[in-house]
Amino acid sequence: MTFELTKDYLDHILDLIEKQDSATLKIEMEGLYPADVTGILYEMESQEARYLINQLDTKIGAEILADLDPPERREFLKNFTSEEISRYVNLFDSDDAVDLLNEQPIRVREEVIALLEDREQARFILDLLHYDEDVAGGLMQKELVKANVNWNMNQCIEELRKQAEDVEKVYAVYVVDDHERLLGLLSLKKIVLAHKNTKVESIYDQDFIFVETYRPAEEVAELMQRYDLDAVPVVNVQGKLLGRITIDDIVDVITEQASSDTLAMAGITGDVEEDDTVWRQTQARLPWLLVGMMGGILAAKFIGFFEGDLKIVPAMAAFIPIIGSTGGNVGIQTSSIILQSLADKSGLDTGVWQRLIRMFAVALINGLIISLIVFGFNLLIGNELQLALVVSSALLSVVFLASFMGTVTPLALDKLGINPAVASGPFITTANDLIGYGVYFGLAHLLLDL
Amino acid sequence: MTFELTKDYLDHILDLIEKQDSATLKIEMEGLYPADVTGILYEMESQEARYLINQLDTKIGAEILADLDPPERREFLKNFTSEEISRYVNLFDSDDAVDLLNEQPIRVREEVIALLEDREQARFILDLLHYDEDVAGGLMQKELVKANVNWNMNQCIEELRKQAEDVEKVYAVYVVDDHERLLGLLSLKKIVLAHKNTKVESIYDQDFIFVETYRPAEEVAELMQRYDLDAVPVVNVQGKLLGRITIDDIVDVITEQASSDTLAMAGITGDVEEDDTVWRQTQARLPWLLVGMMGGILAAKFIGFFEGDLKIVPAMAAFIPIIGSTGGNVGIQTSSIILQSLADKSGLDTGVWQRLIRMFAVALINGLIISLIVFGFNLLIGNELQLALVVSSALLSVVFLASFMGTVTPLALDKLGINPAVASGPFITTANDLIGYGVYFGLAHLLLDL
Repeated sequence: MTFELTKDYLDHILDLIEKQDSATLKIEMEGLYPADVTGILYEMESQEARYLINQLDTKIGAEILADLDPPERREFLKNFTSEEISRYVNLFDSDDAVDLLNEQPIRVREEVIALLEDREQARFILDLLHYDEDVAGGLMQKELVKANVNWNMNQCIEELRKQAEDVEKVYAVYVVDDHERLLGLLSLKKIVLAHKNTKVESIYDQDFIFVETYRPAEEVAELMQRYDLDAVPVVNVQGKLLGRITIDDIVDVITEQASSDTLAMAGITGDVEEDDTVWRQTQARLPWLLVGMMGGILAAKFIGFFEGDLKIVPAMAAFIPIIGSTGGNVGIQTSSIILQSLADKSGLDTGVWQRLIRMFAVALINGLIISLIVFGFNLLIGNELQLALVVSSALLSVVFLASFMGTVTPLALDKLGINPAVASGPFITTANDLIGYGVYFGLAHLLLDL
Repeated sequence: MTFELTKDYLDHILDLIEKQDSATLKIEMEGLYPADVTGILYEMESQEARYLINQLDTKIGAEILADLDPPERREFLKNFTSEEISRYVNLFDSDDAVDLLNEQPIRVREEVIALLEDREQARFILDLLHYDEDVAGGLMQKELVKANVNWNMNQCIEELRKQAEDVEKVYAVYVVDDHERLLGLLSLKKIVLAHKNTKVESIYDQDFIFVETYRPAEEVAELMQRYDLDAVPVVNVQGKLLGRITIDDIVDVITEQASSDTLAMAGITGDVEEDDTVWRQTQARLPWLLVGMMGGILAAKFIGFFEGDLKIVPAMAAFIPIIGSTGGNVGIQTSSIILQSLADKSGLDTGVWQRLIRMFAVALINGLIISLIVFGFNLLIGNELQLALVVSSALLSVVFLASFMGTVTPLALDKLGINPAVASGPFITTANDLIGYGVYFGLAHLLLDL
């Protein structure tokens, strides 16, 4: 039932494109959903993609172009004329149209808008181009069905019939007053079940959730998730209905957010993918590797001060790794738990102190267990009691310090308006490492009487 | 418009509960959405929560209980009798009912089912209890509206009217034959716009996506996301319509997956939250810290072999951290990129070799830049040329090895059916560290003529 792309099938399609066998190609594509064709396009060169898209029905082609990931779409569209692009954009939902146009050079953008046959679409697009892509206004589409509060069901259905082609998924009809101010909504279910002469005002739902154009995308996502909404209307400050955001766009926001947070945690900047060019991947990864390297150089410089000590007790060097990795692991664990609780905004905001106390309790248990085991190991392999004491007290201190840093850093970044996900990344790990070595060599210098 | 929980408001509500001021409490709660009340409950003790829930209208109470996170719900329900639970479960959607019952001891589960007033609900629940919670059958609800293919619109609307109370969000009417086999679907929009005497068979959509009961939850999520579906029908192997999965449940699957992947990456087992008990947090974190510790002990043992070398060239110890952290950082970056591409199943499966070649190209650039800088640093601070060469060639090798491990490990885990997200966690970092130290000391021993 669902389509699975294979190498053989791809070769077959590429072969048809090569031979310009439009007829067979059309038959092959007819059996597929637009989303499946999108998957095939990702495996093609721009020229092949252009040929394939142009063989399809314009409506299907439009759906596919709307579905494509921005980097590939930008690449493909370089081979399209503005006329061709406008033919497809004409059939887009307005939010998708704006996304596509924002990826284009300003000249192409203006040409496409000027060439749009559907002038209402052009007006919609010009309206939406004002908004940042990461606020509600940038996510909304203008396509929706609205009804005046004074209408009856018959008028509602008439309006629905008029808009049916433009508005793919209806969910609900929005109820407005004479000044286009949003008053509430009317579910399709209610319309189906109501008598034709029933007035809108007697059955519409006045208890509803809306967002203002300036709300951040993540806030909208959190809201739609919390209240299980399929669509949410967007209003301006005067309460005038401007558009709506549908759940499929929000699902995309959620997955993108999760993926970019994971990458940030791993020390990768920007939305890079495995099949991006070597150069793009290097750009995304090198900065954080350099941060780690700087940390390593600082650590080298720092440990250099204790070279004399190391000459006397070379066994000290053996515990550098465990100090570093324990600090790193505890720091990442702690900050991930804090991050998760920052992302979940439904509860009451816990104070910093309460968080720290709990984190310290966990640190105490974990730290004691680890230090005791390592203490035993040291005695077992015949190291001196003093060295064993130094290593284990350094470990315990490192667990506490890393717990502290892991708690405070994401909270501080969040307060400063920086994505706290980077707090689990190389930067914090590096800082934790350095603090750990400091504690270790400091304690060693003091306790080993060097 | 949206509710924000404050400490003051919470204290006010707790005060009302303390005073058993049911009347004021009811008025306060009336202005809130169920999801907001859920947020308040998370801040309460079980007894307070029970009192508050019992003051609410049973329907609202049911919605709130359905919405609660499992750990808190299990805690709260300990104070409820089976009669009370059954009164709420009676009004649940069947999928939520099964989730709740699965959290209960078997005795409570059977009592609640026996006590359910709505016997159809009891039958639905017994049907659904068979399925694992992470397959389509475990996500589906039995509540849906279906129409026989031989009906006309009037009959459809009649059926819709009958089911309207039970099926909160309709999306589409499912079209079945006389043997309950799923033939297609009919959107509400089409029903509204069609003439009352139109036959279902002449307008229903035969081109639709469904899933079988045994499909894994993530596959359903991926499918609904790829095809922008609001709901997907679930069938058995004979094609008989059994239920449907709605997008809100899938949004939950997606967020839970993302959150548990992030935690796995950070070396945390199980779905632990910041406000879980200290003991539970320790349990979730200690295992991976112990893995890291074992790695550290192994590293110590290993570096111990080279104690003689360190006595002669103590400056070698200074570069232990940079070797470890570079290996760790490169490994995490690489595996995160592979993980991301594994999660995105739309494209063609890239072969291991192609992946490795690209990864190695990135490794070559990053590795060369880092080794050259560190080489310069070594000469600058007056270290011997030989040591500088050892450190930089070890760094370059470590970058390659970590890229190799970071690519191969998640792929291998995925093939073995283990969640590859753990590959970015402490286990791999530890393995990378150990390999790194091995290369470093091995090279040193060889090149420094120790």
